[in-house]
Amino acid sequence: MKIIDGTIATPKGFHADGIHCGLKKKKKDLGLIYSDTVAQAAAVFTTNQVKAAPIFVTKEAIMDGQLQAILVNSGNANACTGNQGLEDAQATQEYIAEKLEISHKNIAVASTGIIGKLLDMEKIQSGIEQLSEIGGNATGFAEAILTTDTTKKEVVVEAEIGGALVKMAGVAKGSGMIHPNMATMLSFITTDAAISSQLLQELLAEKTEVTFNQITVDGDTSTNDMVVVLANGQAGNTEIQLGTSDYEIFRQMFHCVCGTLAKMIAKDGEGATKLIEVEVSGALDTLSARMIAKKVVGSSLVKTAIFGSDPNWGRIICAVGYSDVVVNPMTIDISLGNQLVLKDSQPVDFDKEAMQEELAKETVFIKIDLKQGEASGMAWGCDLTYKYVEINALYHT
Amino acid sequence: MKIIDGTIATPKGFHADGIHCGLKKKKKDLGLIYSDTVAQAAAVFTTNQVKAAPIFVTKEAIMDGQLQAILVNSGNANACTGNQGLEDAQATQEYIAEKLEISHKNIAVASTGIIGKLLDMEKIQSGIEQLSEIGGNATGFAEAILTTDTTKKEVVVEAEIGGALVKMAGVAKGSGMIHPNMATMLSFITTDAAISSQLLQELLAEKTEVTFNQITVDGDTSTNDMVVVLANGQAGNTEIQLGTSDYEIFRQMFHCVCGTLAKMIAKDGEGATKLIEVEVSGALDTLSARMIAKKVVGSSLVKTAIFGSDPNWGRIICAVGYSDVVVNPMTIDISLGNQLVLKDSQPVDFDKEAMQEELAKETVFIKIDLKQGEASGMAWGCDLTYKYVEINALYHT
Repeated sequence: MKIIDGTIATPKGFHADGIHCGLKKKKKDLGLIYSDTVAQAAAVFTTNQVKAAPIFVTKEAIMDGQLQAILVNSGNANACTGNQGLEDAQATQEYIAEKLEISHKNIAVASTGIIGKLLDMEKIQSGIEQLSEIGGNATGFAEAILTTDTTKKEVVVEAEIGGALVKMAGVAKGSGMIHPNMATMLSFITTDAAISSQLLQELLAEKTEVTFNQITVDGDTSTNDMVVVLANGQAGNTEIQLGTSDYEIFRQMFHCVCGTLAKMIAKDGEGATKLIEVEVSGALDTLSARMIAKKVVGSSLVKTAIFGSDPNWGRIICAVGYSDVVVNPMTIDISLGNQLVLKDSQPVDFDKEAMQEELAKETVFIKIDLKQGEASGMAWGCDLTYKYVEINALYHT
Repeated sequence: MKIIDGTIATPKGFHADGIHCGLKKKKKDLGLIYSDTVAQAAAVFTTNQVKAAPIFVTKEAIMDGQLQAILVNSGNANACTGNQGLEDAQATQEYIAEKLEISHKNIAVASTGIIGKLLDMEKIQSGIEQLSEIGGNATGFAEAILTTDTTKKEVVVEAEIGGALVKMAGVAKGSGMIHPNMATMLSFITTDAAISSQLLQELLAEKTEVTFNQITVDGDTSTNDMVVVLANGQAGNTEIQLGTSDYEIFRQMFHCVCGTLAKMIAKDGEGATKLIEVEVSGALDTLSARMIAKKVVGSSLVKTAIFGSDPNWGRIICAVGYSDVVVNPMTIDISLGNQLVLKDSQPVDFDKEAMQEELAKETVFIKIDLKQGEASGMAWGCDLTYKYVEINALYHT
């Protein structure tokens, strides 16, 4: 498997476009992914009980495991918009169905942006007319789904599977209200592999748990989170079956795409200057390890300490202690980068210069060894900065 | 019942002092509460698994329900200090026992400050020598327990109970690492009421749940949290019995002291400019109402919105939705101050000028009606500001 250059439209038979339709002032705000044949599909959605209208519409569309197009707008979340919001999401689906001459049942819709405002359907409708279903600006799609993100998030991988070169591409957006729980942010993944929607759904659930669900920016789980995967089978591989070596390769591709996008979201968290990667080892089971890693990376005090380049292991072990996982409070080792700072829950001397180098890096690594068992888990987040406060205090509804 | 001026030493037979012994650069850092007779006592402690040494020592001291003195130092938490830390906490207890000529089993010790550094026992020992057991600077105690707090937190109430004028006083400290869970911050309460330690413990557990445990500053549960209550019986009232009107009056006093201190801690949260009070009504049960209130007041996005005086109800209903309590997402009303902003989960027009007045107040009130049932609950927090980031990023271990 290798990472290659490309866009969400790099896998065979996929097309994408992104344009400005006027929901945002200047930036792109409407994007389309289109497969020229019907694709096997899988999706996971937010667990927030307050769900945006497009969540309901897309859930219904994907029930049969098939999709052919995804329309996404930014600038407006279409959340807390009642029946009118639902009708608007359905109308959006219809407009796309007419334009592409496909069934509305094969169309997913997603929205991100401000909560509580009705969609401007005139802008949506005229925007849809401007979108190119073929030959569009595919990387423009990755731009059109952004809100407070500072960079687009794209990754493409390829590998030989079942006698064919299979490609997989993913895009995602962050970057506030990020604390996915059994679901995730807006992310869309395309692949030309032949694989059933059932297997795709299993893989998506498995990988979401260890990638998207292990990132946090601010502890707030959004009303609009969604990941949708399309597999159109155009690579020409023999259909991927569970338990084969092909499945393992595809699984690795999937892990690479989800993991890369998840880290990109964490790194581009609102106001962030550093990516924080926490690895917990020596746990009794992987779920416990992941829970602890996510508590540590979500601690406001740990996040501000990393922003200030302070090796504050006290805040780290404090977060381990309130993580809801039973630990032995006397046997914990903690390292920051390559510097051991805590051994058996007590401080050890470390090289202060080397530590400052570690804390100045773009990615700060926190390693926690519980010495209880053999399991491990990871989580990703970002530092908490003045800029996060500025972005979210100056934002006006 | 009325609130009166006074200090932690206002109830009969109590004495207190606070001095500078050198653990902090300039500010007071060592405090003593002393009852001239043995008092009935109750306490709750942090649920963090990583507990500071004084937690273990005080838990043992209070096992028989009796205490006569409390020694507190700030500037050093005596946490993650291993066996030496435990020995130091015990030695502190011994020094006080010798000075006051009372049993070390009747002495509670508490610490707050930096994690992972051994106590400077020379400074503690000479500091204890300087403390006055009688005639000390009682309000100095409230100062000596502070860390990043900007104000001392004291409250005194009195009421007629069982034929006597009973007084109750409380002090507390915040103001970071504040997210108590089944326990609370450093807080000490004295009363001259006659009441058994069993009843005192029941009341403390009951009131902690709805006051101290309902505040949050940053979601981080400290390693050192503790509330200790002493009742020395010197008011001369008939001993308070469960189910009597005296008990109800005492319960109200207790609620007033705990509630006032809890709000003081939230208001003085690190970097805070405003106190946020969230009231959830129409819930199926009080625990659900409290859980939702605490999620809302703990949301970084809600906290930054309040800092920016933005009536961002979208972030509020989003936090209700991920609160782990099952709600009806279609029937929620939200008010900010006296302005209704959401009715049945959909936005309503409000007076923008009146809203700006509400959001400029020292206390911002958020009211959420779930319209599911009759139960209600409250929580308190503070806004998230540049100053919070500054305090915690510039802090160096």
